[in-house]
Amino acid sequence: MKPEIAKLGHVTLVTKDLEKSLFFFKEIIGLEETEEIDGVHYLRAYSDFQHHTLSVEAGNSGYIKRIGWRTKTRECLQGFKQLLGDHHVTVEEYPQGTTAGIGESIRFKMPSGHTFELYYDVDKPKATNGYASVLKNQVYKSWRKGISPRRFDHVNIHTTTDADKSYDFLMDVLGFNMREYMKGDNGILAGWLSVTSLVHDVALLKKDTLPTPARLHHISYWLDDSQDILRAADILKENGLTFIGPGKHGASQAIYLYVMDPGSGCRVELFSGGYLIFEPDWEPIEWTLEERAACNTYWGDTVQDKELNNSTIEVR
Amino acid sequence: MKPEIAKLGHVTLVTKDLEKSLFFFKEIIGLEETEEIDGVHYLRAYSDFQHHTLSVEAGNSGYIKRIGWRTKTRECLQGFKQLLGDHHVTVEEYPQGTTAGIGESIRFKMPSGHTFELYYDVDKPKATNGYASVLKNQVYKSWRKGISPRRFDHVNIHTTTDADKSYDFLMDVLGFNMREYMKGDNGILAGWLSVTSLVHDVALLKKDTLPTPARLHHISYWLDDSQDILRAADILKENGLTFIGPGKHGASQAIYLYVMDPGSGCRVELFSGGYLIFEPDWEPIEWTLEERAACNTYWGDTVQDKELNNSTIEVR
Amino acid sequence: MKPEIAKLGHVTLVTKDLEKSLFFFKEIIGLEETEEIDGVHYLRAYSDFQHHTLSVEAGNSGYIKRIGWRTKTRECLQGFKQLLGDHHVTVEEYPQGTTAGIGESIRFKMPSGHTFELYYDVDKPKATNGYASVLKNQVYKSWRKGISPRRFDHVNIHTTTDADKSYDFLMDVLGFNMREYMKGDNGILAGWLSVTSLVHDVALLKKDTLPTPARLHHISYWLDDSQDILRAADILKENGLTFIGPGKHGASQAIYLYVMDPGSGCRVELFSGGYLIFEPDWEPIEWTLEERAACNTYWGDTVQDKELNNSTIEVR
Amino acid sequence: MKPEIAKLGHVTLVTKDLEKSLFFFKEIIGLEETEEIDGVHYLRAYSDFQHHTLSVEAGNSGYIKRIGWRTKTRECLQGFKQLLGDHHVTVEEYPQGTTAGIGESIRFKMPSGHTFELYYDVDKPKATNGYASVLKNQVYKSWRKGISPRRFDHVNIHTTTDADKSYDFLMDVLGFNMREYMKGDNGILAGWLSVTSLVHDVALLKKDTLPTPARLHHISYWLDDSQDILRAADILKENGLTFIGPGKHGASQAIYLYVMDPGSGCRVELFSGGYLIFEPDWEPIEWTLEERAACNTYWGDTVQDKELNNSTIEVR
Repeated sequence: MKPEIAKLGHVTLVTKDLEKSLFFFKEIIGLEETEEIDGVHYLRAYSDFQHHTLSVEAGNSGYIKRIGWRTKTRECLQGFKQLLGDHHVTVEEYPQGTTAGIGESIRFKMPSGHTFELYYDVDKPKATNGYASVLKNQVYKSWRKGISPRRFDHVNIHTTTDADKSYDFLMDVLGFNMREYMKGDNGILAGWLSVTSLVHDVALLKKDTLPTPARLHHISYWLDDSQDILRAADILKENGLTFIGPGKHGASQAIYLYVMDPGSGCRVELFSGGYLIFEPDWEPIEWTLEERAACNTYWGDTVQDKELNNSTIEVR
Repeated sequence: MKPEIAKLGHVTLVTKDLEKSLFFFKEIIGLEETEEIDGVHYLRAYSDFQHHTLSVEAGNSGYIKRIGWRTKTRECLQGFKQLLGDHHVTVEEYPQGTTAGIGESIRFKMPSGHTFELYYDVDKPKATNGYASVLKNQVYKSWRKGISPRRFDHVNIHTTTDADKSYDFLMDVLGFNMREYMKGDNGILAGWLSVTSLVHDVALLKKDTLPTPARLHHISYWLDDSQDILRAADILKENGLTFIGPGKHGASQAIYLYVMDPGSGCRVELFSGGYLIFEPDWEPIEWTLEERAACNTYWGDTVQDKELNNSTIEVR
Repeated sequence: MKPEIAKLGHVTLVTKDLEKSLFFFKEIIGLEETEEIDGVHYLRAYSDFQHHTLSVEAGNSGYIKRIGWRTKTRECLQGFKQLLGDHHVTVEEYPQGTTAGIGESIRFKMPSGHTFELYYDVDKPKATNGYASVLKNQVYKSWRKGISPRRFDHVNIHTTTDADKSYDFLMDVLGFNMREYMKGDNGILAGWLSVTSLVHDVALLKKDTLPTPARLHHISYWLDDSQDILRAADILKENGLTFIGPGKHGASQAIYLYVMDPGSGCRVELFSGGYLIFEPDWEPIEWTLEERAACNTYWGDTVQDKELNNSTIEVR
Repeated sequence: MKPEIAKLGHVTLVTKDLEKSLFFFKEIIGLEETEEIDGVHYLRAYSDFQHHTLSVEAGNSGYIKRIGWRTKTRECLQGFKQLLGDHHVTVEEYPQGTTAGIGESIRFKMPSGHTFELYYDVDKPKATNGYASVLKNQVYKSWRKGISPRRFDHVNIHTTTDADKSYDFLMDVLGFNMREYMKGDNGILAGWLSVTSLVHDVALLKKDTLPTPARLHHISYWLDDSQDILRAADILKENGLTFIGPGKHGASQAIYLYVMDPGSGCRVELFSGGYLIFEPDWEPIEWTLEERAACNTYWGDTVQDKELNNSTIEVR
């Protein structure tokens, strides 16, 4: 039986200005800090159920160590170890205790060059400091500070490698479904793929040139209402931050706003709206180069901006 | 390998006043009519991908014929036929062509008394009459008429039978996950269960007395933003309809508004917000009788209202 | 030339639990503190331009000292002194410096028993502590804390006196326009009156019995969007406060939510939507007793609740 | 006593494609048609109280005949006739019956070259065809069709004449208050002025070159909630119309979206949010050339676009 991934788990961020990054993620974006251990700050949104969805620690430059995914069962983790070996992928194993809040895991390089980590076991700590929601089905209080997104949504990554290999790998080995894609003259330029009912848990874009082969364009946190994105714009302006958006994507139909962590250079997409896919035989939506503008920006402040497209951070 | 259900498919409604029901569902709620065949009107929301999520036809009284579910694969349909037989459930088989837009199907009675239908194949017709959205990933134009919900969301059904048998059946045979439940002095009084990432595709409530053992409390359509529920309230008032809400449930955290089709007596819940469950090891949220008010109505116009709870329509 | 009032200015609140009241108004409602002088805390919303719209100070019980109004010119203040004298109203004069942020003023008792204060001069201090908005036309940063209403909107007061005298006084002497009213069997039961384009700067309700003749039912702060009222409901729940709403009034068409300061018993209405009146020959909207429910609550959680109607605080 | 203007009344539009313009204003924007007389279509928003706020009729090109304003009293109309004469302004008098729904009026050319019309008497017809709102304080049903703005808001006009003369005229003769302005190297480049509590009933911009000296940049209709502007964007896209926005102005703080009537070339601004001015001693907000970008677009899709700024229609 094929092993399966349940969901996007977390991203491990290194920043060259820890203070700035913590102010950005905790006070402006409004993430909560589960705990801090040995200088690593474990953060999550108010309704992220697992221990953390973002960790932030100091380093010499801004980059992502790895992108973590939770498997459907503990057996799936073993299944992936086997399956990746069968595909001649080098797999490193890490015992429980390596990363706070995460059990036994495996790590490997995607064909795209990005390090992925898989695990099943997670801690689900309750909120502390009186910050627990009065709702039994929510971790922290709503609207406690900053923009206050509900949950971690997706990652958007770029590669200069032969992206078709990675689209195939994501689908054939890791079990992702292609939901929408943009077709260029020589294959797919951008693919939105998911293991969940979201249009994408990961978007992978093919680029001709990048500072390093494997980059992260943004991580994304989700808000319940489109007006929350307008409120986010107000909050970012009051904090002196520039951003792109608000606008609405054609692909995914989501309302977006992009802002960069001034500490690490890691971009965050604030995200709302969109649609869910429950059809088991979904046929991927194809966007042509002629439809590129509408695919990126159905309406609003455009994401075609050069600065937006050129600034990414390394994923090791 | 266990067969699996992918999603809620459709509900088959009979009404004693077809004209009123069609005005309600098409002009006020704003559903689109895919087609009408032999007096049966096949309706869906602007972004429902399958042929219909609600059919409406004339009859002597208002009731539901059956509740349809789409399986994950064609093999799952055969798997369920086998599995239901193993559980001594009488299964009726229907060939393609029995219901417009739906392929080969099986029907059976739930322990709760409700008729469920399973099928894999569906037609996914495009919008006609110039009503197609300019968006490639959406069927009809947004906001074309009435309240304009995005998609079919869930059903809420009541039973006077031993509900525990049905909770077990839903989980053990049909593969549903219990997401939240209200515990009474003698077992579960209400369970919210899903096969998707939604908190519930079906809610089942245990009642001491009902006009017939198997009833439907409401069908639910989903809107993107909580403000859309306030707009819905304005539209309903302008059409002279009474309703309960807006309010926010504790269970599911969704914003709600309940209004009844004056033709059939079938209640519709307009629904937004809420949360998604991607955790593979979700532990069901338990609400006690003491927490019942908050579970039903976290804030807003209360759903504890007698009229609301007593009016249901039969599911045959 | 008749003297004119420009706008509602401020309300002077005394509380028996200053700490609770300050937490409520500053952290939950999200008002800003301009300054504190001799135990009086001067508060305002993020876009209230004058020194304060609410002052809070400790006392033996919760009550309102007076309700302040700003005149159109300095000459209008003198004009009102004269005009009130002509109407045999006792006027007390207070020099600049009596109340922080407010210049020379006069005070008098309304026929309804409420103390009104009139003044023209106000201080308009800028925000301090780095809290100034980046917008040149706004005082404090948006969304800095709590519910974060934009501005002071209106007061709602009750009286057991012959209310008709007060409606006449408000219109004939103070220059208010009747915008909407509810007609009982013996005259007006509730009147919504304004000097501005708002439907009401003050609502006055006639009551048969009250603990003292002149009471305040609520003060109201305004938010830009109806969704902000839903967000306010979430915030109040997370803070353990009960409230009535959200709902939509028939009169004024505004979206509302009522919550009580646990320190003073002063109720706050959070308010959005509604309409503006620019017509110079507006004919007051008459609501009959039969229309009372719709006038109070067009939809949503009803304001007919006994607790809501019975709890008021004294205006001296 | 100085005569006063109460509010912006209406705009008289001529279009070279009447069918297109009527479809645009009635079906897409969602204005209601009070009546049609001799080929002139009298339109208004669902809560515009006077007979019409926009009239549309066929002609050889798209232009505005005049911009109408309602005075505070009938005496004010006579007062303005006198006052304008005192300022050597040529005044044309028109008897009741000249324009449907409007009484006796006077017309004159602004120094800027735009024709203004003043009148006091207006008809306030009720809604017909079953379209009347169930609300006593509203004319038509909410959300009946299209984008469905609440009311007429303001006009934005351009001139190549010495604009300072017009700013002075608006303030000194017509009684407008300057609320915000952009200062260039040689005087004011843009002024936002009002007689109401709105930040502007009219904006006047100075331009070096225009096809004719007096132009209209846009008329504006107001919506209650910022999310309504996002919904408007969806509706415009589904109708194949391009637009600029959504974004938020610095000046006025309003959320905007600009779309052009394809029949006449008359631009419509859909408008929400913003702030009200009740202070009688408001000091105009000054924006410098350095602040121009923020004044135009605080965030979102920019209004600095060349196409947007260059396309205007004549006001005769």
